[in-house]
Amino acid sequence: MLKRHILIALLFPVFGLLAQDQEHQQVIQRFYSEALSSYEAYHQLEWLCENTAGRISGTPEAAAAVEFTYQVMLHMSLDTVWKQPVIVKNWKRGEPEVGRLVSDIYGSTDLSVCALGLSSGTGPDGLTAGVIEVQDFEELEELGDAVRGRIVFFNRQMNPAEVNTFAAYGGAVNQRSAGPARAARQGAVACIIRSLNTELDDYPHTGVTRYDSADEVIPAFAVSTLGAELLSLRLRQDPGLHLYLRSTCQTYPDVLSYNVIGELRGSLYPEEIITVGGHLDAWDNSQGAHDDGGGCIQAIEVLRLFLATGVRPAHTIRAVMFMDEEIAQRGGQAYARAAVKKGEQHVAAAESDRGVLTPRAVTVGTTAERFARAKSWEAYFNPYDLPVITGGGGVDIGPLRAAYPDLVFLGFLPDNQRYFRFHHSAFDTFDQVDRREMQMGAATLASVIYLFDRYGL
Amino acid sequence: MLKRHILIALLFPVFGLLAQDQEHQQVIQRFYSEALSSYEAYHQLEWLCENTAGRISGTPEAAAAVEFTYQVMLHMSLDTVWKQPVIVKNWKRGEPEVGRLVSDIYGSTDLSVCALGLSSGTGPDGLTAGVIEVQDFEELEELGDAVRGRIVFFNRQMNPAEVNTFAAYGGAVNQRSAGPARAARQGAVACIIRSLNTELDDYPHTGVTRYDSADEVIPAFAVSTLGAELLSLRLRQDPGLHLYLRSTCQTYPDVLSYNVIGELRGSLYPEEIITVGGHLDAWDNSQGAHDDGGGCIQAIEVLRLFLATGVRPAHTIRAVMFMDEEIAQRGGQAYARAAVKKGEQHVAAAESDRGVLTPRAVTVGTTAERFARAKSWEAYFNPYDLPVITGGGGVDIGPLRAAYPDLVFLGFLPDNQRYFRFHHSAFDTFDQVDRREMQMGAATLASVIYLFDRYGL
Repeated sequence: MLKRHILIALLFPVFGLLAQDQEHQQVIQRFYSEALSSYEAYHQLEWLCENTAGRISGTPEAAAAVEFTYQVMLHMSLDTVWKQPVIVKNWKRGEPEVGRLVSDIYGSTDLSVCALGLSSGTGPDGLTAGVIEVQDFEELEELGDAVRGRIVFFNRQMNPAEVNTFAAYGGAVNQRSAGPARAARQGAVACIIRSLNTELDDYPHTGVTRYDSADEVIPAFAVSTLGAELLSLRLRQDPGLHLYLRSTCQTYPDVLSYNVIGELRGSLYPEEIITVGGHLDAWDNSQGAHDDGGGCIQAIEVLRLFLATGVRPAHTIRAVMFMDEEIAQRGGQAYARAAVKKGEQHVAAAESDRGVLTPRAVTVGTTAERFARAKSWEAYFNPYDLPVITGGGGVDIGPLRAAYPDLVFLGFLPDNQRYFRFHHSAFDTFDQVDRREMQMGAATLASVIYLFDRYGL
Repeated sequence: MLKRHILIALLFPVFGLLAQDQEHQQVIQRFYSEALSSYEAYHQLEWLCENTAGRISGTPEAAAAVEFTYQVMLHMSLDTVWKQPVIVKNWKRGEPEVGRLVSDIYGSTDLSVCALGLSSGTGPDGLTAGVIEVQDFEELEELGDAVRGRIVFFNRQMNPAEVNTFAAYGGAVNQRSAGPARAARQGAVACIIRSLNTELDDYPHTGVTRYDSADEVIPAFAVSTLGAELLSLRLRQDPGLHLYLRSTCQTYPDVLSYNVIGELRGSLYPEEIITVGGHLDAWDNSQGAHDDGGGCIQAIEVLRLFLATGVRPAHTIRAVMFMDEEIAQRGGQAYARAAVKKGEQHVAAAESDRGVLTPRAVTVGTTAERFARAKSWEAYFNPYDLPVITGGGGVDIGPLRAAYPDLVFLGFLPDNQRYFRFHHSAFDTFDQVDRREMQMGAATLASVIYLFDRYGL
């Protein structure tokens, strides 16, 4: 009863709709209603978080996540569900790390640290060395040989005054990705970086490091933001302090894993494919609720929304759980490679990997001319306060765009204020996910995919 | 260094700014930067939540909250800080409530219940009666005398498909506010309502009930949404089941409490006052983090932002912690009454009482003509993705508008997807507040107040 009233109310603000447009508006309304009323996706995410926490590629937890999402999609009356082989990196953390500040003046203090992905372990005895703090690569280079035999401490914070936290992350992440290799080239024995966290707290935030050659691989750690503050203070008070670091992480030979794919076949253009995905792997120190279990479950939920509302897509829609996003992005590469090899036609792709927080905008990434047409969809999103803006893409669907230059990126932009509080840390837990916020994202994805499916661009 | 780059980047999108407008833009940028970089407000809220949880008006906890916010503002180099006497309602919950479903077929099951504000207690022995479930007042009225001696169970859910959760709340709240009185008029011995919660979980959500006369006051409870689902199921299976309810709540004689007010005196128009407030009382079953400790602390933070950035307002700005919003709104009434009595000039008022979640819009509530001028401020809020929309007001500043019809409502609209998950329940805790989201709200309030202060309307 109430639903009908809302529907009628929604129809009025958009003037001059053709009958077809009105039908589209009603479909979108049904997507949001169904998503907001359902607990199915939320319970799937709960299961994934509670039973496959720490599912970094190559682990039994990642294998369990593959099997779970495969089985979930098998039970959904999709047209095809399969696992696509991917050879993945296989880095393992080993024992819990130790980071201890040792000062002759202030005594010993344990710091919250964790090893960075692909870094090498210190070995069971750990290592002890003096510390040199730097803010950026320029400062590191100026130090020249002075860092030899020392531990380089990168302590540039994410700019707290930056409103867009992804921009703040972009301004700080090179410390983690390239810092250890650069420190190694100047002879450092280890590297420790301030966690990429907008907040002052005691969670270390991990993430991958990049190396150009094996000589650059040294033990590398993140320290919590509070730990970084303390270390910096103590260095000012006692520049001669030492840091004891211990990690037993190691990169093992590559192993076989899978992308998991579920497909709803198009009624009119079955050979034209729209992909919607998230990555199934998550850092081994976390449940991976926002990064990116939620994104995977949203992709599955998109298919469920089409099925539950009885809307048959004209194009084929695929939900893809990409493997190994965090370490080497092998899943996204394998997916694109297989597509080209099989001669598939890919027309659009969406990726949800910025947290499943409340949506702030619909994103369409394509040429200016095609975007102008997508902009006319904005009326459909007025009831949800979502402008249509340029954007989209992502690490896992990037290779697909490289292979299909006309591919349109579809997606949504979630609010980002709280995202880096949990990103890559033990704080990225299921209880940080709000069901309605996640479902608003899933309905938004389904809606923009539906509009592309019906109108094209 | 980075800050300066951001500032320059921000200046470009807004074309044709006069020097004065550029100065305003820089001030706003400083508000946001300062807010996002500071932990002061966040730590104040933490203290308030952890030390004055359950601060419903008339309690020692409310008195502690009065003293804390008074002392916080005394230490802030404001021009004046004072406590404004308010005689408040004094309802106390008493012992933890009991709700037990007793079925001859299914046995006994405890339900999560809590008494509703201003309801009467069952007395220490509790009461036992049969239950009649209804969805709305029409259904209740049709039952006529059949509810005599029974417990009326209102089980209409907040419409989950409604995108705006405040609209969904508006569509369900009359069960709680007027349901018990209506049930009493038809001879019911007690009333139990489904918690006003968007989610299925086991927290009972309290709230106030309204009565026109003393005969209408009966024991009234909220049951968690999961409890409501179970009760409804059992009633279908066993319509003869009984419910045992026990509460020892009681309304005691009114007591003296206070609004807490801090004032930054205007440099040019000190007699013209802009109020920014939240309510200091919170339900006795909660920390009142989002409702409305966060709103109070945002009001204090607005003053701190002016002080920290060295921006002297032309008009007087007052942060007001209103008392007794939850029960009888005596604080807002006393504030307006005192203003009129002293012959004060009030030109604008803002109230933050919809949770301290991420801001989605700046709100200005005034005539169409004046709003059109406020709409031109939108360029200042582009960097923060905030449109300027009509709206604002609230329970505590409503009486002020009634006394000063030209008063302009200023404010911001937070995202609302997750709000009713904690509203009036034990889940409304400090750890549900994100520092950056709360600070974005405070900076938005400071900015819209600043623009009003400089441009007028």
